[in-house]
Amino acid sequence: MGHTTTSTTVPRRFLRRRPKKEKVPAGIFKTFSSSDEENNKVMDELLLSSKLKRVDSATGSVSNSPRALQPIQIEKVQKTPYVVLPANEKFSKFRTRSRVAVDIGGTLIKVVYSSVCEDEDLPEDATTRIFKYDDGKKILVNFKKFTQMDEFIEFLQNNWLDRTPEDVIHCTGGGSYKFAEIIRKELGVKIQRTDEMRSLIYGSNFLLNNNVDESFTYHHDAIGINKFQYRPIAQDLIYPFLLVNIGTGISILKVDSPDSYERVGGSSMGGGTFMGLGSMLTPAKTFDELLELANRGDHRNVDKLVCDIYGGAYDELNLKADLIAGSLAKCSTYGGATSKNHKAEDIAKSLLLMISNNIGQMAMLYGTRYNLRRIYFGGYFIRQDPITMRTLTFAINFWSKGQTDALFLKHEGYLGAMGSFLDEDGKLEE
Amino acid sequence: MGHTTTSTTVPRRFLRRRPKKEKVPAGIFKTFSSSDEENNKVMDELLLSSKLKRVDSATGSVSNSPRALQPIQIEKVQKTPYVVLPANEKFSKFRTRSRVAVDIGGTLIKVVYSSVCEDEDLPEDATTRIFKYDDGKKILVNFKKFTQMDEFIEFLQNNWLDRTPEDVIHCTGGGSYKFAEIIRKELGVKIQRTDEMRSLIYGSNFLLNNNVDESFTYHHDAIGINKFQYRPIAQDLIYPFLLVNIGTGISILKVDSPDSYERVGGSSMGGGTFMGLGSMLTPAKTFDELLELANRGDHRNVDKLVCDIYGGAYDELNLKADLIAGSLAKCSTYGGATSKNHKAEDIAKSLLLMISNNIGQMAMLYGTRYNLRRIYFGGYFIRQDPITMRTLTFAINFWSKGQTDALFLKHEGYLGAMGSFLDEDGKLEE
Repeated sequence: MGHTTTSTTVPRRFLRRRPKKEKVPAGIFKTFSSSDEENNKVMDELLLSSKLKRVDSATGSVSNSPRALQPIQIEKVQKTPYVVLPANEKFSKFRTRSRVAVDIGGTLIKVVYSSVCEDEDLPEDATTRIFKYDDGKKILVNFKKFTQMDEFIEFLQNNWLDRTPEDVIHCTGGGSYKFAEIIRKELGVKIQRTDEMRSLIYGSNFLLNNNVDESFTYHHDAIGINKFQYRPIAQDLIYPFLLVNIGTGISILKVDSPDSYERVGGSSMGGGTFMGLGSMLTPAKTFDELLELANRGDHRNVDKLVCDIYGGAYDELNLKADLIAGSLAKCSTYGGATSKNHKAEDIAKSLLLMISNNIGQMAMLYGTRYNLRRIYFGGYFIRQDPITMRTLTFAINFWSKGQTDALFLKHEGYLGAMGSFLDEDGKLEE
Repeated sequence: MGHTTTSTTVPRRFLRRRPKKEKVPAGIFKTFSSSDEENNKVMDELLLSSKLKRVDSATGSVSNSPRALQPIQIEKVQKTPYVVLPANEKFSKFRTRSRVAVDIGGTLIKVVYSSVCEDEDLPEDATTRIFKYDDGKKILVNFKKFTQMDEFIEFLQNNWLDRTPEDVIHCTGGGSYKFAEIIRKELGVKIQRTDEMRSLIYGSNFLLNNNVDESFTYHHDAIGINKFQYRPIAQDLIYPFLLVNIGTGISILKVDSPDSYERVGGSSMGGGTFMGLGSMLTPAKTFDELLELANRGDHRNVDKLVCDIYGGAYDELNLKADLIAGSLAKCSTYGGATSKNHKAEDIAKSLLLMISNNIGQMAMLYGTRYNLRRIYFGGYFIRQDPITMRTLTFAINFWSKGQTDALFLKHEGYLGAMGSFLDEDGKLEE
């Protein structure tokens, strides 16, 4: 199967012709591209390709370990986002056979796939682990997202060339039920399904253990890459933690071990709400445009602040003057309130703050309830957006009185796909 | 000072001429009206004038007390909302002098004032308390709300006729700072201010102790007045409790005694958010119109449900098919999602559910955190609206696994004004 077009085999409803054909290497995913142009198209998360500076702190720190405060070695960093798998017997089969996993959510299709690399320059990480097999090969795990089912199908048709009817595609996420038939038909492979929550946990576990700078805190007032400070965590200290996965809605998981976890809470106010309200109230045409609008907005024009009601701070309650008392409350025209045209960017900012604040507060309440000091945020809502990360960080700090940090993950959007990629016990559907 | 018009003395910005002059009795508030027409205008809360049926339960029950399961005596119920003050020495001064308190929030102006009643038919409540003074008079506390400052001023100018420059108006709420000068100037009285949280607690304390059917649970599937089941609570069992006050935003108070309480949390997503988003997304012109829209709407057209993502229930996580996964997520037009015109009533319903669910969940989390089994809801957001009460009740039951009930208050919107009315220690502002 070569670079044939797929317009005759994919149902029209999944086909949206791309203006320019994607130049991803063909064959078994043997090499990874190093062309800037291609890489920028492959993944838009800057951080996935950046090495973060290690900062130890009271939270999740391993400052007593011999590795503490030892700087990451600056290496030649490849721009395609990948993680190198340890040279472990259980992964060795990926040297001869591609492995592909997909997490289909309410909005995005996230793909994780293996490729083989023979590049001698690929860095060994600053740990004792070995990544190179005897034959000199390294196995990379690659990350890619799609918004359209047809693009996802086309990408795999064109690039997953060693697939046979005996191969499986590892699936997770609510949408993998809905699209199972299409995937089976168009790719001609079997479906092996992993439970969504189990995928999230497996994925987080693997990334926290294997990607040395996976988790980080956000520091808004720092400059450039210093805004992101990675927080290493010793393998034996990872559990328990709280995982807040922000997709269309929110799931809050208490994780005691890779095999023991509970969905302790959730909320219907997540990325789907932000996009739904954003679609109706602003001209933004994509999530990223909406985030960009929000970044230019001033929520004080549409939110009622404490000072709007009290004329200043409410000192007795320690409520600062600029605290938001009522999100979007200035947009009300009821009861004779003055109405005016509000700017789309101000509304976008208010929505983002409202939803992020709410998530942060809820995460903190669940963290306190289960006495968990480490709170990780996952899911594609965050997108390393500065307002979102700043707000979540602020909320966690505010409500924990500085006792807890918000921890972000470089592969936040790929936890589920990563977990499904790793899962050997998934349910096979013929 | 008689029924003079006030157009020459009130600044234009506070004046909005009423189409029809309010027929409230003049003079010291000596009688309360019994005309249906007037009463309907005075107060739109049906429940304030209804006697509720007593139901004892595990929560807040006094089923071991001698009064347990004893039905409320059906009395001739006056339609003007009032509470009769006990014939206590500290209230006796109100027989000769009106007392007036106001709580000015971000949206509404709530007034509580005394009137004297010589009607022999006024019921004694089914307790041992005495309500009639030696001179045969009873003192009533009356409740009235305004959306316009000019209407509030005009009402007091026309009816608070025994006021002198030595009298005070008891004030609370954020807006009482902003409007202090106007009130002082137009009414010619002094301002005595009570802290907002203190007012809420004083008011709740008084009403729970003195108004026999003040607090109730809501039962959506029951019929008529049986939807509201009052939950008596013995005086020595009232504390501690959680008070969730829903105004423009939300304040969550942990109350250990009338003098010991703490604002443990809050949220910017309250009535102001509902009205702000409702103003922008629906044609409703008032809060009540927006509620009315919501009552006709079907949120399933705009919310993503669990079944929209999974094709059914997510049994492993015990998530029912009709649970809301993403509020308003179907309104997103991003990532190629199909866009269509959504109905205003569906959006209103979704907004109301989203905000009520969130409040309920947060209340429950704070209740659990402080080990408080009784959660009272106050503030004018609720308005005895069936969706709101049903959602709050559902959320509290769902997240507490049936261990905790949502408790509503007949005078939910007047807690602050009631507390300010009672407060003797407020700060006098010359």
